Amino acid sequence: MSTQPRRAAAELDAAELDAAELDAAALDAAALDAADPLAHLRERYVGSETSLVYFDGNSLGRPLRVTAERLATFVEAEWGGRLIRGWDEAWMELPLVVGDEIAAACLGAAPGQTTVGDSTTVLLYKALRATCALRPDRHEVVLCRDDFPTDRYVAASVARELGLTLRWVEVDPAAGVSTEDVAAQLSGDTAVVLLSHVAYRSGWCWDLDAVTALAHQAGALVLWDLCHSVGAVPIDLNAVGVDLAVGCTYKYLNGGPGSPAFLFVSSGLPDLVNPIDGWYGSDEPMAFEFDAGRAPGVNRFMTGTPPVVSTALVEPGVDLLLEAGMDRVRDKSVALSERFITLVDARLVPLGFEVRSPRDHQRRGSHVSLFHPDARAVGQALIHEESVILDFRPPDLLRFGFAPLYTSFSDVDEAVSRTVRVVEGGGVDRWRDTVPVVP
Amino acid sequence: MSTQPRRAAAELDAAELDAAELDAAALDAAALDAADPLAHLRERYVGSETSLVYFDGNSLGRPLRVTAERLATFVEAEWGGRLIRGWDEAWMELPLVVGDEIAAACLGAAPGQTTVGDSTTVLLYKALRATCALRPDRHEVVLCRDDFPTDRYVAASVARELGLTLRWVEVDPAAGVSTEDVAAQLSGDTAVVLLSHVAYRSGWCWDLDAVTALAHQAGALVLWDLCHSVGAVPIDLNAVGVDLAVGCTYKYLNGGPGSPAFLFVSSGLPDLVNPIDGWYGSDEPMAFEFDAGRAPGVNRFMTGTPPVVSTALVEPGVDLLLEAGMDRVRDKSVALSERFITLVDARLVPLGFEVRSPRDHQRRGSHVSLFHPDARAVGQALIHEESVILDFRPPDLLRFGFAPLYTSFSDVDEAVSRTVRVVEGGGVDRWRDTVPVVP
Repeated sequence: MSTQPRRAAAELDAAELDAAELDAAALDAAALDAADPLAHLRERYVGSETSLVYFDGNSLGRPLRVTAERLATFVEAEWGGRLIRGWDEAWMELPLVVGDEIAAACLGAAPGQTTVGDSTTVLLYKALRATCALRPDRHEVVLCRDDFPTDRYVAASVARELGLTLRWVEVDPAAGVSTEDVAAQLSGDTAVVLLSHVAYRSGWCWDLDAVTALAHQAGALVLWDLCHSVGAVPIDLNAVGVDLAVGCTYKYLNGGPGSPAFLFVSSGLPDLVNPIDGWYGSDEPMAFEFDAGRAPGVNRFMTGTPPVVSTALVEPGVDLLLEAGMDRVRDKSVALSERFITLVDARLVPLGFEVRSPRDHQRRGSHVSLFHPDARAVGQALIHEESVILDFRPPDLLRFGFAPLYTSFSDVDEAVSRTVRVVEGGGVDRWRDTVPVVP
Repeated sequence: MSTQPRRAAAELDAAELDAAELDAAALDAAALDAADPLAHLRERYVGSETSLVYFDGNSLGRPLRVTAERLATFVEAEWGGRLIRGWDEAWMELPLVVGDEIAAACLGAAPGQTTVGDSTTVLLYKALRATCALRPDRHEVVLCRDDFPTDRYVAASVARELGLTLRWVEVDPAAGVSTEDVAAQLSGDTAVVLLSHVAYRSGWCWDLDAVTALAHQAGALVLWDLCHSVGAVPIDLNAVGVDLAVGCTYKYLNGGPGSPAFLFVSSGLPDLVNPIDGWYGSDEPMAFEFDAGRAPGVNRFMTGTPPVVSTALVEPGVDLLLEAGMDRVRDKSVALSERFITLVDARLVPLGFEVRSPRDHQRRGSHVSLFHPDARAVGQALIHEESVILDFRPPDLLRFGFAPLYTSFSDVDEAVSRTVRVVEGGGVDRWRDTVPVVP
């Protein structure tokens, strides 16, 4: 337990939740929750009234209460009531409508630059192939060794197909990584830099502006994977001059397990080629012409019939993010993770844990990874004995994700206290030989 | 109006609904509905109680009433209640579980051969690339000029990438096509035959067995697009020896607009390469290893995080198909379309319509296309004046789809009667200059 003096709720107001100045551990969690300008949004989520402590909103966001209602209306009135007429009346444009909503809420993109569909992996494949084709005389793709396997698989697939070489930014588990490590891999032969804005293991957050500028200086294009930052870290794609970006909607956007991904394409690029041409990327799909022209901009990256139901499900979470405002979301995210790290230093480091995420909040996303030699067993004990839901990432990391729209400061304190209880109470021994925590 | 003698319901029993022997127009629609062993299933669908006559179940199936309920339970209890634990408890396997259900209900496939995910277009791309790679010394793909644009786009994309030539089976709008037309395109250079089991415009239904055997005799592999047959025409993939097949779930399987597609891969094939490698096709996704092996069989065609919510939505329709039984579904489909054609000949051909679908029911899927020089205007009038929902396909076809689980014989009579009323009542002139019917 922190020994710093605590302050009462009465002394606080919302303005004090400025993360950079906040000494989180000096305040009562209850006081922070009382002063939190986003606290009232928590009750909009299913399950937020239970004693379960959820630190996995960075992997799968909670559903909003309105989501089930929205779905019922969709099935009865839209699908069931309008039937095939729904395509003409609303669904044809839905991927672009929801794309624009995401763009406005959290991408810093203009209308018409973003579409929703497919999975992150499929969109990464399309985007990487299309981007490489803009630099036909260059033969290298720069990416990070510690990025999510799918990014690496896709890059390997594309490299194999196009005869490219992958240049890896390596990550030191303790020291992390830096912008200079990217610079070291760039050359006149770099076609594309493909990086995760926030790394799925460490929570490292690249300086979007600096890395994009570096890549452009080298004559390369950038393709950002925003899965672990979108909805938690402010992003301003057009201001930074990002070329293409892909992200998912099931983490901080709360679209549901396996909800569709989104793709942003800068308006400044020449016409791109979608390697998976389909009827929906035609400039007049309903003409059913084989020789139709390709739709302009991001539209041509639509391939098959779009996933209407699951795209509609993305809207409630995005609406709430718009209501909350990304600045307040980010302020709270930083306040939550700062408090967590302070409490970890005080209470968990003595028990064998190490913080394996950046301590500089400007270089950290909205999750914090802790090393523990028996991380798997600790995770199992937390889930099964303490109702703390979090991620284990092999071989030795526990990931605590902070979803600012429903994670409270009290949750943070609870998570740390329950972790102490698990470790001091012999939980590691009880769970050492069990199956892994997933996913 | 048919002048043939009518029979009363009392004279009928379900056994008489044997399509091949049925003289549909000799019976009252009400009598046929009364004797229909599937008639009681109609009330399970949203909207079936309205006066709207729906002939577009071949494009977008109606939702089942249980679907909204299933969704609410999913959001509240599974996603909201189990949160990230849902992956371990059910969702990881869901694409294969639902794939097996589709296989059992209507594909004639064994467990473990079918998975659900992506769109039809993306799965066609993966499957065609993987299949072509099994015949690296051959340079041609055979496909049909009249197949859905996406099949042609995908084939063109893959041909461009791999340096292949497309060999087209041409279709005469009046005379149609035959198995011999496929044979004429086959040679020792044919790698793959990609055909739609049922053609989206004409409703032509290939003899799956004969065409597959022809392709195999030529040393080629077959990739069938089952979008317009699955759930309406009996399919026995393993008995026929089909190599790969792809299909959608939003037509006769009632999965909802843009619901995910399915892929079947024969167990007898050597290991295939998924061109869009992703984390989910690893043999141990939750290890998050980049160098993990690829999953066996169809599993390796999974790419990104699977679309859990929309995959779960496919189950109710498939369950109902299992309950109904494909033989009864097919019998009713044929009875409906035979009756429709008989009534069209008697009442619509004199008004300028022509049947542009096969008259041999063995070569016909579950929709019938009618030519009319003002097809677009007739379609608009039917939708807006008569609440008959159907498809217009440019330039001059109207498509009437028969979904045997909820289309009634009375619907067939209504559709024809309302079409007569529209044409005789000047509907063509009223709607000639309006926008096209979609989609």
